Amino acid sequence: MLENKRELIAVIGGSQCSAQEAKLAEEVGRELARRGVILVCGGLGGVMEAACRGASSEGGVTIGILPGESRQAANPYVQFPVVTGIGYARNVAVVKSAQAVIAIGGSYGTLSEISHALQSGIPVIGLNTWSLSRNGQQDNSIILAQTATEAVNKALSLAIN
Amino acid sequence: MLENKRELIAVIGGSQCSAQEAKLAEEVGRELARRGVILVCGGLGGVMEAACRGASSEGGVTIGILPGESRQAANPYVQFPVVTGIGYARNVAVVKSAQAVIAIGGSYGTLSEISHALQSGIPVIGLNTWSLSRNGQQDNSIILAQTATEAVNKALSLAIN
Amino acid sequence: MLENKRELIAVIGGSQCSAQEAKLAEEVGRELARRGVILVCGGLGGVMEAACRGASSEGGVTIGILPGESRQAANPYVQFPVVTGIGYARNVAVVKSAQAVIAIGGSYGTLSEISHALQSGIPVIGLNTWSLSRNGQQDNSIILAQTATEAVNKALSLAIN
Amino acid sequence: MLENKRELIAVIGGSQCSAQEAKLAEEVGRELARRGVILVCGGLGGVMEAACRGASSEGGVTIGILPGESRQAANPYVQFPVVTGIGYARNVAVVKSAQAVIAIGGSYGTLSEISHALQSGIPVIGLNTWSLSRNGQQDNSIILAQTATEAVNKALSLAIN
Repeated sequence: MLENKRELIAVIGGSQCSAQEAKLAEEVGRELARRGVILVCGGLGGVMEAACRGASSEGGVTIGILPGESRQAANPYVQFPVVTGIGYARNVAVVKSAQAVIAIGGSYGTLSEISHALQSGIPVIGLNTWSLSRNGQQDNSIILAQTATEAVNKALSLAIN
Repeated sequence: MLENKRELIAVIGGSQCSAQEAKLAEEVGRELARRGVILVCGGLGGVMEAACRGASSEGGVTIGILPGESRQAANPYVQFPVVTGIGYARNVAVVKSAQAVIAIGGSYGTLSEISHALQSGIPVIGLNTWSLSRNGQQDNSIILAQTATEAVNKALSLAIN
Repeated sequence: MLENKRELIAVIGGSQCSAQEAKLAEEVGRELARRGVILVCGGLGGVMEAACRGASSEGGVTIGILPGESRQAANPYVQFPVVTGIGYARNVAVVKSAQAVIAIGGSYGTLSEISHALQSGIPVIGLNTWSLSRNGQQDNSIILAQTATEAVNKALSLAIN
Repeated sequence: MLENKRELIAVIGGSQCSAQEAKLAEEVGRELARRGVILVCGGLGGVMEAACRGASSEGGVTIGILPGESRQAANPYVQFPVVTGIGYARNVAVVKSAQAVIAIGGSYGTLSEISHALQSGIPVIGLNTWSLSRNGQQDNSIILAQTATEAVNKALSLAIN
């Protein structure tokens, strides 16, 4: 039985984050690991590191898709570092590798990942993150969640493929 | 005197667009050309094509940075097609090549370009496009304009480098 | 103790290959798995699939860095598919993710990976693959091996980081 | 009549080069400009700069597709700088943008561009550059030229599209 049938969920957010965001991210990571879901992220600090730490604490698998030239930049909880060398264009790969995306806080890099996911039809669950309106009309494509568990439940129920 | 000292402004927006958006994009293209500014875009249809058509009508220079494998996909008003072969990761190159970005309407692809620009510190001028709020607070990074001329004026006054 | 301290070796070669190349690739995959090394590859068929099949048969870990838009293109022995959406520019990520590269046969795509590896200072071990000369002088940067075991030994002894 | 019907030829080679290579590259650039061909390159120094200088001296058009984050890295003869932010993955875009490629000298980065071009079916003309053999058999895909004029003639006669 091959693992590439396992779900893969991306957790995205800032490489710097608040204590509350880190707590949420760690809970999301733990919860994903408990369900046997593989966590993919951008591999750096902040929300990414907290999510990987949570997943690792429950024996989960973590993949970090790095922007730079060296795996040395990976946070210590990334088990499988992918070194792209393509800078922030790697944001595309982070979301395309996932069946659903959980966004926690985040700045413009996170917003680019949200955008690339929505453009590709990959569901995005949001925890205290961006909200969007287009030409004056609210866009509700980001599905709101209030807790880590709710975010993981929604991500798994909406996961594509 | 080398042309690489000339300003280069990106015009971004949907590959399909309304008649009103096309009209705005064409005016922006014309206005950029009249000022001697080089227009860069994603090279496809809709807003991109209308902007290139406007620029061409005033003898301006147009560069199209294409996502696919062939320059055949370029709209007929792209003078200098760049074929990246990297899909929507080319959105990063569209905005990084510019000293400022003018966004007209657009969907999630345009939002990803806005995000990548803001992440890189490149000013974004918006005409009937996305507006953003983060964690419940309005984000005013997209500078609003009401007309093509106002958008071009603001882009040139804020252009970096 | 985190797995991101484990070695990661890339196996590269054609998506179509001879029976002999497939046999070599499968042996390389098995041998890497026996040593606890993580196998990274481009995730498709031919040499990539044979190497992943070998690694899987020994309980090894396999990462496939895919060029397209969907993980459906991954061979069935890829445990952790990374979907880049950047086409053959993903070749850069395949080699940059590795501490050493083993090339088996292969055509121009493989040659591009060999080149990107050598440009980045990542050792390349060759099994029946390209040889190079520059301006009439032999270039011996590709380290030759005759057997799968010799290739794996050399890759591990030369692995960077 | 639109300029995107004009031929676009890539000139590739090292960012550092010998005086002889620079002379060849400058002649190639001049010759391309005299024929009304647009020159595309990686935008940096060495062969790229010499080719752009030659083209500029004859009033030709030069496009530089840069690896980094800023157009400041472009050589002074690049008229139209494209800033990709994707590192050496931009090598793919340099060759895919061209109808034929002229390689002058060069190291592994140039070899990666030759490989990507051949993989895409784009003709490669070589001046004192790499030669290839695969599994012991000479590969004659790189078309040899002895002079700048011969290289430009061959590039134009073989140009695709």
